[in-house]
Amino acid sequence: MAESPITPRSKDFAAWYQDVVLQGDMAEPAEIVKGCMVIKPNGYAVWEGLQRELDSRFKETGHQNVYFPLLIPQSFLQKEAEHVEGFAPELAVVTIAGGKELEEPYVIRPTSETVIGHFFSRWIQSWRDLPVLMNQWANVVRWELRTRMFLRTTEFLWQEGHTAHATHGEAIAEALRMLDIYAEVAEQVMAMPVIKGRKTNSEKFAGALQSYSIEAMMQNGLALQSGTSHDLGQNFGKAFNVQFQNEEGRLDYVWQTSWGVSTRLIGGLIMTHSDDKGLVLPPKLAPVKAVIVPIFRKGEEGGAVLEAAHKIAKELGAKVDDRPGQTPGAKFFHWERRGVPVVLELGPRDLAAGNVVLKRRDTGVKEIVPREQAAEKLQAALARMQTDLFEKARKHLRDNCVLANSIDEVQAILGDVTAESGGGRFVMVHLKDDPACDARLKEFKATVRCIPLVDEYDGAGTCVVTGERVEQRVVVGKAY
Amino acid sequence: MAESPITPRSKDFAAWYQDVVLQGDMAEPAEIVKGCMVIKPNGYAVWEGLQRELDSRFKETGHQNVYFPLLIPQSFLQKEAEHVEGFAPELAVVTIAGGKELEEPYVIRPTSETVIGHFFSRWIQSWRDLPVLMNQWANVVRWELRTRMFLRTTEFLWQEGHTAHATHGEAIAEALRMLDIYAEVAEQVMAMPVIKGRKTNSEKFAGALQSYSIEAMMQNGLALQSGTSHDLGQNFGKAFNVQFQNEEGRLDYVWQTSWGVSTRLIGGLIMTHSDDKGLVLPPKLAPVKAVIVPIFRKGEEGGAVLEAAHKIAKELGAKVDDRPGQTPGAKFFHWERRGVPVVLELGPRDLAAGNVVLKRRDTGVKEIVPREQAAEKLQAALARMQTDLFEKARKHLRDNCVLANSIDEVQAILGDVTAESGGGRFVMVHLKDDPACDARLKEFKATVRCIPLVDEYDGAGTCVVTGERVEQRVVVGKAY
Repeated sequence: MAESPITPRSKDFAAWYQDVVLQGDMAEPAEIVKGCMVIKPNGYAVWEGLQRELDSRFKETGHQNVYFPLLIPQSFLQKEAEHVEGFAPELAVVTIAGGKELEEPYVIRPTSETVIGHFFSRWIQSWRDLPVLMNQWANVVRWELRTRMFLRTTEFLWQEGHTAHATHGEAIAEALRMLDIYAEVAEQVMAMPVIKGRKTNSEKFAGALQSYSIEAMMQNGLALQSGTSHDLGQNFGKAFNVQFQNEEGRLDYVWQTSWGVSTRLIGGLIMTHSDDKGLVLPPKLAPVKAVIVPIFRKGEEGGAVLEAAHKIAKELGAKVDDRPGQTPGAKFFHWERRGVPVVLELGPRDLAAGNVVLKRRDTGVKEIVPREQAAEKLQAALARMQTDLFEKARKHLRDNCVLANSIDEVQAILGDVTAESGGGRFVMVHLKDDPACDARLKEFKATVRCIPLVDEYDGAGTCVVTGERVEQRVVVGKAY
Repeated sequence: MAESPITPRSKDFAAWYQDVVLQGDMAEPAEIVKGCMVIKPNGYAVWEGLQRELDSRFKETGHQNVYFPLLIPQSFLQKEAEHVEGFAPELAVVTIAGGKELEEPYVIRPTSETVIGHFFSRWIQSWRDLPVLMNQWANVVRWELRTRMFLRTTEFLWQEGHTAHATHGEAIAEALRMLDIYAEVAEQVMAMPVIKGRKTNSEKFAGALQSYSIEAMMQNGLALQSGTSHDLGQNFGKAFNVQFQNEEGRLDYVWQTSWGVSTRLIGGLIMTHSDDKGLVLPPKLAPVKAVIVPIFRKGEEGGAVLEAAHKIAKELGAKVDDRPGQTPGAKFFHWERRGVPVVLELGPRDLAAGNVVLKRRDTGVKEIVPREQAAEKLQAALARMQTDLFEKARKHLRDNCVLANSIDEVQAILGDVTAESGGGRFVMVHLKDDPACDARLKEFKATVRCIPLVDEYDGAGTCVVTGERVEQRVVVGKAY
């Protein structure tokens, strides 16, 4: 047997990830453009699945899709002081267009708060115009130094929601509602458990009052910030003069939110479930849920097996791998590496016995089922696999959340952890929301992932850096 | 009554179009970025409808969605001589990124043949790897001098299909198959009749061997090139060294196609069906197919009417306009301008009589129907409206196709026609596929729209410019 094209996780987690992405037909590096990738058919189909799940939830909660320009006048970013400071180092700038040097350069959107702020100021005059609840599916560009496919790429695909409200209370409720939707899709669709929390002031979005995020734990124990939702306060309202007459007839600035998830989610999906054999996809997001591999030697009852395979496939909504010139073994590897949840085998003996063999991708367990029960058993296996993947990931997350009560303890746990080595943990520690505390963690490349919205630990305690009393433990970890 | 916010077509067709777009909540100009627009909720929802219709047909014919980078190294475009000549004047160029001047600038994709050619050369080695059938949904940028919302914008959204084949015959069949899909969506979904044809050598895509297009006629008689499909021959295969071993074991260059439609289709949709009252949308693409407007005076039986309206709406899958503080009249205008195919009225007298009033957007005709037949009558009205819109547009196209047998005659018909004036025609004339003939038409700003794939006229004849014998009449018109 040929050597596996996939590096084991234990050997080099980063190399394993790259191999899984490539062998799973998910993406490949596009080295011709710094830090970019090509999203390949299997990867794009997963993205379409995520889009469907997210988009229907956005629409159910009253949001409408729109599309704003890719290019933004450079001066727009400068209108919100923190925003430009955060994004200026990462901008791609268009200076020539239509054969001429531009008087004012355009930047390719790294995010669209500024251009949308401009239009909100046009569209919103009165409390009657509020709330405005919009979303756009788009590409953005951020010139990153260190890139990894899906996790951090120069260009990525995402959705960005942008809303404007009459009161701060409504804006906060909106930001938290969308965070809940992200958590729901992560857990119930992606089978990826997350911790919902608030970002520290050091880690929040450039220009936000508060940022909220969902944080997932990869198999190497590193955190992946998987979605963010921002309470922008009146910062962009003031920068772009988005004023409205409130119900009392007075002028006020709107309260805004923005929230986004991106193709980064696909990286999280891969690093949550996949194994040393390759990609594992949760059934709800698998573009192909089941494949039937017919097994027969040349000439040997091939016709009958193939015919039955196609008949069963039709009943199950499955695909038949009837490619000629490929051995059944090669076909099994092919679909295994692509993360297809269930592969069904059908050979002459199965046919004679009236059975099919059903094999789950995650456990590798085979089940012989009577042909007339195949549809029902397949549905049960898919449902069970979806639940099992979530439970397994949740156990991994729980088993790797540890308490610490001093900064030395935190450093001892996380100090040597890298993306390659694995062994990461979420360390629950009392820590003040203060840039000095974030800076102390940076000394060993750790960060506060979030301040959980629900405290599952022991409540208030003493900050391990400043010695001051703080309300609850925060999540500290190393992150992508 | 307030003056209509929509300029009549007869007064100024271009102003009418702009008004319909704005009042229909379809788009608005984004003057902050030259020639760009914001696609607003109603416009984006129509685009989503078109995407669904197209995407399902692409997938049924074996194509897979993928995503390639937005940015392309400038040198890539230079590899295909005609291609760079065609696109160089329209490029937006990124020269600075991440705070540094780039050694080699990137262009924002005006189309993706070059970057895809690069990846095809990586992926394709053998005839077993063929055909490759891919599509991407993306934004592109072309720095245009004269722009109009949807019809020609600096940035636009589109899909671009890219395929590679082992033989020229297969590539031609693919290009024509996709042209057929475009024509099917235009006619059966958009209710917009089109003429399928081949472009002249002067008008073909930069880098193609042959280009095919569907050409529609707007209400002012101007042509709109609504979709194109290109037989790229081996031009990009040679430029990007996409070689494969054929079944006989010899190396050959792949034969490629590319094909695309864009948000321009929405402009065509608007200019095909809308009227002086505003937007008219064919039922199959209308995001909201029916709205119920409850009618009652303050206090007067409002409760019973509203309750019944919501009940009927649920049965019909319709929307109730229960916005307080708006008169029924204002609501009718609101939905009329947004192109909702059917508005249902329900007042106390209708309620007492067990009726609802059903009004079609295109004809304005009202029909009183018994409430228990409302669902059935609504479906019938929508189906009828879809057919009627197509028949009306087809009649307009047929009535405005005229024959001409000399170049003076062509000039007499088209010479004074502008987008604003209207009065355009498709002039069917014998003309040679020769740059000199295209140039002669340019003198009065007309072009060969296409050489129809099916000749519905009198076959061969004498070219009105060169006097040579040509196989069939071509379509000459003024175009967007």
